Amino acid sequence: MIVTVTLNAALDTSYAVPRVLPGTSHRVRTVERRAGGKGINVARVLHAMGHPVRVTGFAGGATGAAIRADLAVAGMADALVPIAAESRRTVSAVSDATGEATLFNEPGPPVSELEWQRLVGSVRDLALDASVVVMSGSLPAGVPPDAYASLVAVAQTAGAAAIVDADGAMLRDALPARPDVVKPNALESAAATGLDDPVAGAAWLRRHGAGAVVTTLGPDGLLADTPEGAWRAWLPDGLLRPVNPTGAGDACVAAIAAGLEAGWSWPVRLTTAVAWSAAAVVAPLAGDLEMGTLEGIAGRVRLEEQALDRPDR
Amino acid sequence: MIVTVTLNAALDTSYAVPRVLPGTSHRVRTVERRAGGKGINVARVLHAMGHPVRVTGFAGGATGAAIRADLAVAGMADALVPIAAESRRTVSAVSDATGEATLFNEPGPPVSELEWQRLVGSVRDLALDASVVVMSGSLPAGVPPDAYASLVAVAQTAGAAAIVDADGAMLRDALPARPDVVKPNALESAAATGLDDPVAGAAWLRRHGAGAVVTTLGPDGLLADTPEGAWRAWLPDGLLRPVNPTGAGDACVAAIAAGLEAGWSWPVRLTTAVAWSAAAVVAPLAGDLEMGTLEGIAGRVRLEEQALDRPDR
Repeated sequence: MIVTVTLNAALDTSYAVPRVLPGTSHRVRTVERRAGGKGINVARVLHAMGHPVRVTGFAGGATGAAIRADLAVAGMADALVPIAAESRRTVSAVSDATGEATLFNEPGPPVSELEWQRLVGSVRDLALDASVVVMSGSLPAGVPPDAYASLVAVAQTAGAAAIVDADGAMLRDALPARPDVVKPNALESAAATGLDDPVAGAAWLRRHGAGAVVTTLGPDGLLADTPEGAWRAWLPDGLLRPVNPTGAGDACVAAIAAGLEAGWSWPVRLTTAVAWSAAAVVAPLAGDLEMGTLEGIAGRVRLEEQALDRPDR
Repeated sequence: MIVTVTLNAALDTSYAVPRVLPGTSHRVRTVERRAGGKGINVARVLHAMGHPVRVTGFAGGATGAAIRADLAVAGMADALVPIAAESRRTVSAVSDATGEATLFNEPGPPVSELEWQRLVGSVRDLALDASVVVMSGSLPAGVPPDAYASLVAVAQTAGAAAIVDADGAMLRDALPARPDVVKPNALESAAATGLDDPVAGAAWLRRHGAGAVVTTLGPDGLLADTPEGAWRAWLPDGLLRPVNPTGAGDACVAAIAAGLEAGWSWPVRLTTAVAWSAAAVVAPLAGDLEMGTLEGIAGRVRLEEQALDRPDR
């Protein structure tokens, strides 16, 4: 079983509009709402691909209740920790004409010390039955800056592997706990390490505690630096027409988690990660995979072992 | 007491963002939510100016509960009729840099025949204690197209005056019931009458049933065509820097309702309407008046009687 932690869960709202014009009024044609946040998107992908998953994080108020109700509808077991403050929402206005999404992210609700301790307890309990704990996304106010380091320690003590998908300082602060895998994108790698080159960034992250580093490069696929070797994996040009890139990183994390749980080799994890990410970018909603695309690109993902020259290691 | 009817009440969400750029992701700095919809904005203005007011309309689901809770916080008595469907929301992204608002209006929830009948009963009961019933805004699905005609009849039968602020066909369909006042803006007048000239439009509306017509002209003030005479009222150029024009029409309706209740003459109603509208456009949120502005422009509103040449009358 895989546990995903979403400290900044949200109710994602998607508005269909003809086109977004700043300074004007838009009549929304259709409204869709569903549970979101990076860890919940990871769980959604795993659930769709048949992997047992549990969702934890924080949920509060009427919006928290709507998040839980949507997870129940989707058939995902939720162990979200109740908080006093109201959960946040996001609004995405998607243009009928271009498919272009204009996103508004509300700040997350504040969390009390007691609520944070309950979350740590929730992860501890869930990790005892889990092989992997995934923690994704930003930290709400009131949670300690090294929250992910604490959760990595809790997960590993319970016998689970820990994957961290976080930005900048949050990623850096997780490293001393030695997460099994971290998954920055190129910008996040640069923000955390100060190094623009993702290869150099990955080396820095491993040197500072990460077991393996998978850096996503958008349409250029991903780079992996692991104890078993280094690889680049990608999909050749022209196979896809991206619709919504938001969930691609979450689909990648889901594949790595599934691979860790099932004991797949790194090459299998990585080609699966590229395929799931590709099937995610053609689906309109983050957390969904387009199954036809998944079939269409089967066997087309390219993998190349990298000879990393790292005298500083 | 004044009753305001908002068949398409909403929970209005206001997001502070640096600037709206289509196709990008925006971190929302602050979130404000409050009960909205044109009739609720009218009630808010009346309440702020010390006039007793009751709010009715439809409210459903968690969003309906949030609308009621906000009205309670604001100290406004609500008689909203519960519906099975979830009330709608609106999202307004307001640029820190320019004050420009980008608005997304969700479609309203559908209303059943029984729920509509309950609303008619609510207006009937409230109108018995009221001097004026104001009905503002669009009609939700499931409500008959001549809904405003029915409500005008119910209000007048109970002894209250009826003011209708509605668009195009909804305004036209209200006329056979002979509303005491209708308040289109120039575009709405043209859409309802097919006549681009607001003076000709007002004559058409009165000929087809409206007792008096107040046509708002944005920064150019308003035109009134009434049984007691016709006037233009406006604020001289350069006195204001508009921030949010959304609530100006609602502030105008509020002034006319207050004037009907208190028995002010038409000139007093109209100059008050211009002043309240002006104090509304400088306030960031619809339904608020900027009290400093109200003081600053006291005595500066211009009024001119119009000699209307209408051989077709």
